[in-house]
Amino acid sequence: MVLDFYFDFASGYSYFASRRIDRLAADHGCVVRWHPLMLTALTTSTGVLPSPMVPIKWQYVLRDMHRTALAEGIPLRLCKAFPQPLLAPGRAMLWLRAHHGEEIALAFARTCFQAYYGDAVDIADVAVLQGIAAGLGVDRVAFAAGLAEPAIKAQFKQGNELALARGVFGVPFVMVEDEPFWGYDRLGQLEQWLISARRAA
Amino acid sequence: MVLDFYFDFASGYSYFASRRIDRLAADHGCVVRWHPLMLTALTTSTGVLPSPMVPIKWQYVLRDMHRTALAEGIPLRLCKAFPQPLLAPGRAMLWLRAHHGEEIALAFARTCFQAYYGDAVDIADVAVLQGIAAGLGVDRVAFAAGLAEPAIKAQFKQGNELALARGVFGVPFVMVEDEPFWGYDRLGQLEQWLISARRAA
Repeated sequence: MVLDFYFDFASGYSYFASRRIDRLAADHGCVVRWHPLMLTALTTSTGVLPSPMVPIKWQYVLRDMHRTALAEGIPLRLCKAFPQPLLAPGRAMLWLRAHHGEEIALAFARTCFQAYYGDAVDIADVAVLQGIAAGLGVDRVAFAAGLAEPAIKAQFKQGNELALARGVFGVPFVMVEDEPFWGYDRLGQLEQWLISARRAA
Repeated sequence: MVLDFYFDFASGYSYFASRRIDRLAADHGCVVRWHPLMLTALTTSTGVLPSPMVPIKWQYVLRDMHRTALAEGIPLRLCKAFPQPLLAPGRAMLWLRAHHGEEIALAFARTCFQAYYGDAVDIADVAVLQGIAAGLGVDRVAFAAGLAEPAIKAQFKQGNELALARGVFGVPFVMVEDEPFWGYDRLGQLEQWLISARRAA
């Protein structure tokens, strides 16, 4: 089975999920397709206010993120720029997938998550992204040009629209066939669902 | 320690939490104070849209409620009136607490939750609430008059304001000292927190 994993580099709970999703899938004979989204475009479509815009809620979310990271042994060190919308890392991932293959694209995504949430590095900075790409053997100049390609921007935007059409209204979100799982705290139910699906097969 | 348990009879996840909170507290030598709130008043204050007003999200929430109920062995049978704002059960609980004591008030709250979520009975109907109260030995006429008392309405409203001032922006919500836990899916972290607090004491 295929797990469609929808995430935004701007979302801390997406970071948490990104660290578990591949192993969880492999444990149950599944593969993961990583889909970078822009949460603020989803929330604009649905009318939901992003959490950082609701101070009483955001104060709680920050506390919950740190408490959850501690409980689960996840490194968490945020940079001053957090929270902020992030477009470049998602576009970069799509460009890398098209030009350097899935493995490089995934390594890039994981390194971005680790840099932004584990090492307090601001991945809104294109120079930082170029450094990550260069570490994977990708040419810096071609990479920077790739991010700005209209076709890549359009593909990133279309990814959001396709996700919405499938019922994805937040991140992280995992869709397995038609079964939807929203939030890092639903990975346990996702795992139970995969176990039941294998038994039934 | 005291667990302040904030809930709304209109919230399915509050129902789930209501079934676990007392046992969880007792297991760790704590007591629970039950605070009925009106979620729609909280969301009006914070600007957050209630989930039923966001169709793509509400569709998911309904599915998640049923999946979670199944996974946790919680009876769930919804009436046609669900979802709807509910004022009368919360006001009734406050009136019962003032006039018949904590034990009757809690028995009433639990019976309301069971009726609305387990047995598909519409607890917006005052006659239904009168029946529940009568089953606990409370006079039906005095009960119906009690719900309509301006002082009870004011107390219910004030409960919402006090909760907001403490950082409560959704339900179910548990506050232990200054540590906040939002959502049925945070009861596990609440339990871990209580275990750590006892060890530290």
